[in-house]
Order: sequence, then structure tokens, then C-alpha cells
Amino acid sequence: RRRSAQPHMPRQFPKVTLSEVEEKTQLLAEKIYASALKEEDTKDVLSMFTVHEDCPIGLQQDKDHELQKGLEEEQSEESAKRRKSLKIIRSQSISLQIPGSTDSSRVDGVLPLMSSSYMSSSGLETLPDFQRVTISGDYCAGITLEDYVQSAESLFKALLLREKYSKLAYHRFCRTTSQTRVALHATMLWPPDMCPCPADGEDPYSMEVIDFGHVLAMIADGPMKTYCHRRLNFLSSKFYLHEMLNEMAELKELKSVSHRDFYNVRKVDTHIHAAACMSQKHLLTFIQTTYKKDADRIVLEKGGRKMTLQQVFQSLNMNPYDLTVDSLDVHAGRHTFHRFDKFNAKYNPVGANELREIFLKTDNYINGEYFAQIMKEVAHDLEESKYQYAEPRLSIYGSSPDEWESLAKWFINHKVYSPNMKWMIQVPRLYDIFKSKKLVPNFARMLENIFFPLFEATLNPQKHKELHIFLKYVSGFDSVDDESKHSDHMFSFRSPKPEQWTTDDNPPYSYYIFYMYELGLSTFQFRPHCGEAGSITHLVSAFLAADNISHGLNLKKSPVLQYLYYLTQVPIAMSPLSNNSLFLEYSKNPFRDFLHKGLCVSLSTDDPMQFHYTKEPLMEEYAIAAQLWKLSTCDVCEIARNSVLQSGLGHQEKKHFLGVNYLKDGHEGNDIRCTNVAQIRMAYRHETLCNELSFIVDVMKSKGIGSLQEYHD
Amino acid sequence: RRRSAQPHMPRQFPKVTLSEVEEKTQLLAEKIYASALKEEDTKDVLSMFTVHEDCPIGLQQDKDHELQKGLEEEQSEESAKRRKSLKIIRSQSISLQIPGSTDSSRVDGVLPLMSSSYMSSSGLETLPDFQRVTISGDYCAGITLEDYVQSAESLFKALLLREKYSKLAYHRFCRTTSQTRVALHATMLWPPDMCPCPADGEDPYSMEVIDFGHVLAMIADGPMKTYCHRRLNFLSSKFYLHEMLNEMAELKELKSVSHRDFYNVRKVDTHIHAAACMSQKHLLTFIQTTYKKDADRIVLEKGGRKMTLQQVFQSLNMNPYDLTVDSLDVHAGRHTFHRFDKFNAKYNPVGANELREIFLKTDNYINGEYFAQIMKEVAHDLEESKYQYAEPRLSIYGSSPDEWESLAKWFINHKVYSPNMKWMIQVPRLYDIFKSKKLVPNFARMLENIFFPLFEATLNPQKHKELHIFLKYVSGFDSVDDESKHSDHMFSFRSPKPEQWTTDDNPPYSYYIFYMYELGLSTFQFRPHCGEAGSITHLVSAFLAADNISHGLNLKKSPVLQYLYYLTQVPIAMSPLSNNSLFLEYSKNPFRDFLHKGLCVSLSTDDPMQFHYTKEPLMEEYAIAAQLWKLSTCDVCEIARNSVLQSGLGHQEKKHFLGVNYLKDGHEGNDIRCTNVAQIRMAYRHETLCNELSFIVDVMKSKGIGSLQEYHD
Repeated sequence: RRRSAQPHMPRQFPKVTLSEVEEKTQLLAEKIYASALKEEDTKDVLSMFTVHEDCPIGLQQDKDHELQKGLEEEQSEESAKRRKSLKIIRSQSISLQIPGSTDSSRVDGVLPLMSSSYMSSSGLETLPDFQRVTISGDYCAGITLEDYVQSAESLFKALLLREKYSKLAYHRFCRTTSQTRVALHATMLWPPDMCPCPADGEDPYSMEVIDFGHVLAMIADGPMKTYCHRRLNFLSSKFYLHEMLNEMAELKELKSVSHRDFYNVRKVDTHIHAAACMSQKHLLTFIQTTYKKDADRIVLEKGGRKMTLQQVFQSLNMNPYDLTVDSLDVHAGRHTFHRFDKFNAKYNPVGANELREIFLKTDNYINGEYFAQIMKEVAHDLEESKYQYAEPRLSIYGSSPDEWESLAKWFINHKVYSPNMKWMIQVPRLYDIFKSKKLVPNFARMLENIFFPLFEATLNPQKHKELHIFLKYVSGFDSVDDESKHSDHMFSFRSPKPEQWTTDDNPPYSYYIFYMYELGLSTFQFRPHCGEAGSITHLVSAFLAADNISHGLNLKKSPVLQYLYYLTQVPIAMSPLSNNSLFLEYSKNPFRDFLHKGLCVSLSTDDPMQFHYTKEPLMEEYAIAAQLWKLSTCDVCEIARNSVLQSGLGHQEKKHFLGVNYLKDGHEGNDIRCTNVAQIRMAYRHETLCNELSFIVDVMKSKGIGSLQEYHD
Repeated sequence: RRRSAQPHMPRQFPKVTLSEVEEKTQLLAEKIYASALKEEDTKDVLSMFTVHEDCPIGLQQDKDHELQKGLEEEQSEESAKRRKSLKIIRSQSISLQIPGSTDSSRVDGVLPLMSSSYMSSSGLETLPDFQRVTISGDYCAGITLEDYVQSAESLFKALLLREKYSKLAYHRFCRTTSQTRVALHATMLWPPDMCPCPADGEDPYSMEVIDFGHVLAMIADGPMKTYCHRRLNFLSSKFYLHEMLNEMAELKELKSVSHRDFYNVRKVDTHIHAAACMSQKHLLTFIQTTYKKDADRIVLEKGGRKMTLQQVFQSLNMNPYDLTVDSLDVHAGRHTFHRFDKFNAKYNPVGANELREIFLKTDNYINGEYFAQIMKEVAHDLEESKYQYAEPRLSIYGSSPDEWESLAKWFINHKVYSPNMKWMIQVPRLYDIFKSKKLVPNFARMLENIFFPLFEATLNPQKHKELHIFLKYVSGFDSVDDESKHSDHMFSFRSPKPEQWTTDDNPPYSYYIFYMYELGLSTFQFRPHCGEAGSITHLVSAFLAADNISHGLNLKKSPVLQYLYYLTQVPIAMSPLSNNSLFLEYSKNPFRDFLHKGLCVSLSTDDPMQFHYTKEPLMEEYAIAAQLWKLSTCDVCEIARNSVLQSGLGHQEKKHFLGVNYLKDGHEGNDIRCTNVAQIRMAYRHETLCNELSFIVDVMKSKGIGSLQEYHD
């Protein structure tokens, strides 16, 4: 070609004249060039070419700028038009990018559950626009057909099992998930005897052991583990993508909601113990002020001797005025980590159980007057905050049948009721202690002490007025104690029945769980502590028997259970700060991971007296999580929404706090003006859950199409 | 309800009889229960409930098991049927999950480029099945409309610019990317004067400066940075998802290819310097054996005095038999990091440039005989290996016009030709030295010395036989030196022309690049060292002027440039081990990141003598990368394929090594029997690139539909 061939060097050309635009570009270019040269030397962190990811301020500024522009564009009609046309063009290019998408091999209305939320005219119109991550192609993520089919069937069976138990107990069962079965029933004859309920006169308890065994067998099955592990990994990365693509859009939604932010969305502290629900400072002040006015009041009877408050302090030879939070020593710390025993001792102010007896008990010489006062002060603070609610645990031990009566009296006489509190009954697993003290002859008696009074109160309310009223404000049962305590007894259908359980040993966790489930049936929600430590089997029992659980840390250890808890959206009230002092370092806490995957998690305080410093422990719990895990506003509001959903608050309250349609799935169930959760987020969660379920449905359908009888023999 | 209401505790029921299956499950369950209890105590790492992610062996076993099963299923017709039916069901559930997917707002054939590879009957049939990640919904990932449109336009302009320069120089330009423009031309009247080529008599050089300025301005533009940064993040996570979903499927493909594995796919070392292409051990042995037979041969003339090999060693007072690789000291190490000067000294065996002169030069007293012998030994090893190729650099300095003639003679007389080698000419940027030595009066003379001989040889081959033949085996030019050397001169259209460049200062990098591009035009590929260190502007020049580059580390620093290099698939030959000794720690090397995002990267050795230990430096480079970055077989084979593509090997060889259709896009261009790269991977890469380009196309289309004249004024 011309130039390269001819050897006249150097060539001369008439100078090119630059247009004005070009001149400008040149000047800019030279500026940049100059700074580029400078930069080489002064390795500047905030380069003009890179995106400053590690500079929070820079990042924030970028975000704000983008958001600002975005909101402005929202207003402008012009850009609205352009956006629309671009979206159409976009959808075209995408459709052309999905291989074979043009030859529409599509049949509609196969899966009512999939379509339900979209096809419902209302749903489709209000469905938010956002970037959806879709995986199309193979039948399932790189897993062999056989393993996939097996896993899907087992999972399906597990879903049926939980649903069965939820129904019996009027527990909530994830609506979307339930529709899976419905959908299948609709499209095929489902073998009715797959998960039979106990026939009349059949021992439901044995059934439970069998079902427990089924689930237990699943979680150790190799292919199942692989499948669930893969699905969970997928959920993580899918959310990561979703956030990356839609963070700004979600934020825009929130900004456009007036009068609503994280501070004024409802949040419920769904896991908190009454005896430790006040801050250490609060307790200290209360003790001191009480001493001022009541020094000479008789507050304790010890070894037949009546003691005044002053005498009590003298016997402990200390002066209440000199007390500090340090000498009070009710706060957990490094030395309680993995030492539940030491932690429990923390319930005793200045290590003296006299003070605990006087100030933190409902049933003492002063009939729990002081404790009632503290509770009311805590309640008052909640009412002041207006948007914070709590479900404090009060103890029923089962050592005597009279506990209920006195607890109810305490509640009624001291008027402890508060609109911002729902009450939970916690039952410590202390059979072995009562037995050794000869308070009960066998386990059955302990259960009777706990549940008989309820039945009686139900049968003749007149005879048990206080209890009958009190129960109105009790939303559920909790089973509490150190899960890491080991039991040698193996729970099976060979285990002795409660009335035959006469040894001094404590029954294992699962044994407690299933009996409490059985007896609480239909009367109360069962919301045990579970998976804070100890055996993985605890989480299996709870999967069947619990409405929702507290802690759930050990789900980390079993992908199968974690995936089952996701599919069935079993609510999990987690308390990272509590765990941090007892069983698991904050940074290792799976809360964030669970949240991102889409498990129904919420934040709760457990024991503010031991774990928190501020007057607003719940907010403290949220704040720290948000800081350390860089949670977005949408994230924390989603958590708050979960907490309301799983709480014992009534239907009317939930309608008021979450929106009238809160029972509906996905974005239709969300009123952003109440929850401040982006519709995009809601739609994402719902569509993602539907997608996971569809993998199971697909298999069951193909089964249905194929050989159904397999189940009948 | 019945039971919960009646207070007869405990209830007795007839024992349930267990079916055989249930009995089995129970026994299994009890086994698991037992081990679960045991596990609490012995916190076993290989729990039976978790997936052992941190246990490589366990992982490997799982994978093998899965793969085995998978392959067996491949055979079975039965499961083939089931897979098929499941896939159909799957596609149905998905279509129901994509909101509004039923109301098909689709127009076909909008974007030839998108459809081309799928719709071409052949393509669609052979298109592999795999899990595709699709993002549908908004017009673009959470970025404001204005920023998006701006960015897309700028990017499009940049693509046009590179394409222009590639065309002029017969450089390769990514076919898919080129089709973007074609597609648009087809669908709209493109303003012809957007990126004009220099009209006759116009100074193309000034044009280059203007274009250089345009791109330079882009990479510092805020919205552009954000946009590209987001797209790159997306590419990373998308690949992560792809791998997670299709790893097993890709592996299956590879396993089913017989007689082909990573060891026998072709790999080209596209960046290696002749003077350091042998291992230090090899050099040592060669020196010693040579000494044995040639001790008394005159090998050097120094200060008018002729010296034998023996005399040389005496003058250095050392005995060749005592030499070790340590005393040879040609190997880079910790002390060369960020010290290019020290590194360059390493070219001198035992720090004596006499030995370098004798053994590593083509133009010395013995006419480079020894060097030729070493080169032939290296070549021999490559031929033995059969599948490894190299493109060693030989130097042309431009200090005198005779260099070419003598280099060609060396090549011809010593018969250095090898079928496994292509030759590259490296031009060190040493103008300042030659000028100070009065070897050249100005920069133009240096250029003349480098390029005139070529033109002359082209014009009368008879007069320059050797050179004419030698040039047959030369594939391209390289521009080399320490990029971190700083130049104060700012490259602009005010810069003096070469013949006016008479100062002693060295011209800046970009100045070298554009002149070498200009003069190499059409005759040779231009493949400079670029982005190893120094100013980001180097990568801007290369983006326009280079066919492909070596190193490219600094792309890390500019998302815009990185994204441009991705979109145009500019090949990048990276040498992590070399970088590790000079400019960047191995762990911080962006190679893996670039590979995953889909940049066209390959691995090369740079200087085996300094950086490698084994007899197979290229394999060593691959092995270390594979180990440290856990690259899959498909990954390394993809890298090897890239190396062949970007090499100077001829069309026939590439057809033979990559498959007859290697010029086609995506999976159609790949012959897995040659490359051992999974069709799934190829399809993924292609579809992903198309998707990224479609974002740009969408905007240009909407522009086209909208106001075209914008460009005309």
C-alpha cells in the first residue's frame, strides 16, 4: 500500500485544522495526560481513572450523585419516554440472545403457583420493573439426573411433613410453599397415603418419631447434601447479582416514600427474656432508687427470717449507693464465652441470688412487685419509642401446678399489660433437677404441671379468671436451656413414655420438643430456642414441631436443613450479640449469609441486661449488624418486617404495621408505605422462592406424568 | 380440638406397627442420631451433615462420583428420555416465572449480530445445552439514563476508532464487535464522518493525536468509569455463576473427547526474549561444554586485543568448571523487585558483559555462532515437545542501518529456522542513548534505521536476499524497555515531528508507539510491551495502535480501558512470574480476574532464564497459575487457545491447531477435538460478549430511531 512502500522519510503533510469541539477535547486530553504523568510518581489512591472502591466517602458521593440524577430523571417526561423505548429495545435484544427463544415451546398455566402472583391482573400491573436474574437451559444445576430426582422427592416429602405438623398446630406455613402441593394436587392424583396423619386411636407420638427419622435420614444423604449445598450457593450469588443490579433502584423506591424510614418502621424483639430485658444501668438505678424509699420494707424471707432491704444489703455487706454496673456484674463478657454456666450466674446481681429473688422474680415475698415495676418501666420506654415491640419470656418450670395461677395473679394485680408487649412462656428443661429434689415422680408429671392448668382454664374460665385473662396476652411457648448440655439417651420410638420416664436423667432435647409440641397443639405457638449449640438433631425436631425458632446458628452445619428452613421460610430470630458472648464470634455469625440467601431471619436481643449497653437494645442490635455487615436500608427494613411477621402480634396489628394484604405473597403483600421495604426486593424474594420450588415441582410433575404407582406400592 | 382439650395425661394408644421401609428408615435414623450425638463431642471436621468444602480430597471424591454417575447416565437411554422431558417441563416453569413472558412483545431480526450465531441453522443445532444466566428487565444495570446513553455512545466511538486503526494496519479486529457496527449500518444511516480516515495529503499523525485525545478523555469521565466498573463487576459474578452451574457439564464435554488433554493442545509462548529464552541451567551447561571443546578459540575482540575463551575466563579470573547457577547469577529474585536496572544487569552472566557478548549476541566476533547453537537447542526441545511454540524477540536498535542485514545473515547462515518458532523484532526505546553517543542526529534517523531496510528489501528482494527470506519468518514488532521510566514531554499535536526531535531526551512512550505503528503499517503486526508499569496513557496508545500487547497489568487501574480491551478482545500476553519478580506480587496479579471476565488473555514466560526453573518454562508458567488460582482444565485450555489465536502463526497452522472454522464466532469456531475447550465455555463467552455489546447497540439504535442529525452538526 502506498505510504508504507515508499521510502521517503519523514513525510510532511499540511497541518490538520482542528474543529472547536476537537480543540476542547485536546485541551481536556492534555490536562488528563499531565495528571496521568504526575500520578505515576505520586501513586495517588484516588486516581482519576479508577473507581475508588476502598474509599467510603468517594463511594458515597458517587452513589448520592447517581441517586440524585436518577430521581431527577424520574420527574422528566422526556427521559421517561426514552427509558420506555430503551426498555422495549432491550427486551428485544435479550429475546434474541436467548437461544431458541423465538420458537416458543411454551405451555401456559402449568403451575398455578408460579404464575399466581404475576397473572393475577392486579399483580402483573403493579409488578415492579427490575433486573431479573434468570437461569435457563439444563434441567438443573450440574447435578446428575438420579441425584436430582431423589433429592427433589425427599425435599418434597419434607415439605409435606412440616406442613402436616403446622396444620395440626395452627402454625403458620409458608403460603407459597404450600401452593406447591396444591398445584400438584390440582395437576395430578396425589397418593393420599404419603404423609398420613395419625388415624383415630393411633399414637401420634410414634408417628412423630417416624417422621423425625425420615428427616434425620435426609440430612445425612450425600446427594441431598450436594444438591442443597449447590442451591444455597446459587441463592447467595444470585442475591449478590441482584443487589449489584438493583441496589440503586431499591434505594430510589425507598427515597420516594415520604414519612417512612428505618426509624419508624415497626420492629419486634421476638426473643427477649423478661428477667434480663432491662439494661444493667436501668437495673442499677432501680435498685438504688428503691433502696432510697424502701430500705426498711420487708422484702425477703430467708430461712424463716424476714429481712428488710437494708438488712439484705447488710448481710451482703454492701452499700447500694456504692454499687456500680461493674460491681453489679450482670454483664456478659469474654469470660462467658462457651461457659453457659458462668453466663447463667450473671442473672444474679453482685452474684447474690437474694437480689435476683427480690428484683427479678414474679413470685417472691413482695409478690414480684419490684420486678413488675421494672417491666412496666421497660414497657413504658417501648411505648414511648412507639415503633418498638417486645415479646418477653416469663418462666413456667413445671415443678408445681400452682405456678400458672401465681404468674397470672402477678400479671393482673400489677397491671403489667402493655400494648407494646406480647408475652411468651419459657420452660427450662430442668426435669432432672425437680426429679432429684423429688418434686416430680416422672416426666409426665412435669408436663402435667405445665399444661393441665391451661386446659382447665380453657374448660372453665370462670374458675380461673386471672389465668384466663392472662392467657389472652400469651402468644407462645419457648423451650430454654443450654443446648450444648449432652444427653446420652437416644430419642426413638423405643424411648419410654413420659409416665415411664422415671430416671433422674434429663430427657433429650427432641423428647422435650415433641411433647411440648403435642400438648401446646392449637393452643399456642411453639417457638423454642434451637440450634444455638449442641446436636444438629435439635433443628430436625424444630423443623417439624416449631412455628419458628430462636438462634438457628447450627443451620450453618447442615446444607439440607438450611435449605429446608429456606423453602419453608421458618422464621429464625437471631441474636448475634448474644452469640458473640456465648457461642460464636460476631464475624463468624451466619446471620448476614442467611439474610442474603433469603431465609426468614430477624434480629432480637435475647438478654439486653447481659449483652447491650444502650437504652435501646433492639436498635443497638440492628445498628451493629448494619455497621459490621454493611446492610442497606432495604436490608434492615426487610429484617424488621420479618420480625413483625413472625411475632405473636395479632392479625389487626400486622395489617396495620405491614399493610392490609400482608398475607399475600411477594410484592402484593407488601405496603412500602408501612414497611419501607422496596417492592423490588419483595418481588425478588418471592420469584426466587418460586424458582427454587419449581425445581421440586418439575420432578414431581414428571413423576406424575410418569409412573405414579411407585408411591402406591 | 379433640386432644388438646381433654386433660387426661398421659394418653395411651395402641402401638403403631412399622412397615418394613419405615423400620429401615428408623434404623438408619438411629445410626445417624447416634453419630450426631458423638459428633457434638468430637467436633469432627468431616461432619456427616456438612459438605466438606475445605477438604480438597473430600471435594475431589464428590466431584469424581458425580462425574462418574453423570457419564453413566449419558449412556442410558432411559435417563436420556427423562432428562429431555424434565428440560421441557423446566423451560415451561421458567417461562412462567419470567413476568410478562407470555405477552410476547418480540420483534425478530433486529440485531443480526445477536442472532447470527444462533439462527444460522448449523449454529442453532450444534448449540450446546447449558445453564444460561440472563438478566432481563430494566434498560441497564442501575445507572441513570443520561449516564448510560453517554457511556454507550463514547464506548461505541472508541470501538470505531480501534477498528479504524486495525483496518489500516491489517490488524485483527474482533469479528463479533465489528458486526455491531455493521448491524447498525444495516439498520440505520450511519453518519460517515464520525471517525474519518485521513484524506489524501492529510497528516494521519495529527489525526492519531486527536483520536488519542478522544480516548484519553473517555477514561477519566466519571459516568463512564462507573458504567464500565459495573459491567466488569457483572462479568465477574456472571462467570462465577456460570462456573458454579456448568462446571460439571464442561468437564463432561472434555472427558468425552478422546486423545486430547491439556498436554497435547497447542500453546504458544507469545512473549519471550531470545537472549533469555533458555533456562539458567541450560546456559550454564552450554558454556561449560563449549569451553571443553573451544577453550583456545578466539571468541572476542576487546580493545583491539583478540581473546580466546580461556583468556576471557582468565581475565574474569574464574574457572568455567566451578561455575554454578548461583555464580552465573542470571536469575531474578527478591532484590530485582521494582528494580528494572538490577534486573537488566541479570542479562550478564556472572555480571560480565563479555560472556553476554560471546554467548547471547547475534553480532559478535564469532558472528553469533554460540547464540545460534543455544537457540537451536531450545528450538529442538520445542519440536520434541511437539505442542509448544514460541515467538522469541530479536533486537533491532536503530542505531545503524546495517543491523538488519547482519541479523538476517545470522539467521540464514546458522540455519536458526524452526517450525516451532516465529520471530519477533523488539526495538528498545534507546533514542536518548544513541543521541548522546552521536549515533543519530534526531529521532527520525533512528526510525529510518529501523524501517528503511524493510522497505528496500520489499522493493528489490534480489538485492537483499537474506533479509527478504528472514522477514518471511518475522511476525511482528515489539517495543520494549522499562515503562516506569518517566518522560516529561507531553505527547500532543504540538510535539515536534521526528526530524525535529533533536533533544537528548527520549520521546515519550506514546510517541514511539504511534510512529512504530505508522511505519510498521500493513507490513507487520505491532505487539508492544504495554501496561507493565508506568503511565496509564500507554494503554490508550496501544488500544488504538497495537494488534495485541504484552503484560497489560495497569488495566487494573482503569475500568474504562479494561472494558474497552474486553469489548474489542485485544489479546493480552501476561507473565505473572515475570511480574512477580519485577512489578507485582503473584497473588495481586489480575490475570485470573481478567480471564474470568472474558478478556482475551494468554500466559507467556517473558524471560525463562530469569524467572523459571524447569526445562519447560511455558508449562511451568501454566502449572503455577493453575495451582495457585485453582484453574480448571477448561480454563487452561481456553488460555492455550487464546495464545494460538493471538500468535503470529499462519492461517493454515491455526486451522490445524484450532479447527478449520477457527475464525467463526463462539462454539461454531471451536473444534473441541483440537482445543479441548468445552463448547459450553465457547458459547458462554460469545453470548456474554454479544450481551455486553447489545447494551451499546440498544442506545445507538434508539439514537437512530430518534434524532440522527445530532451527529451531523
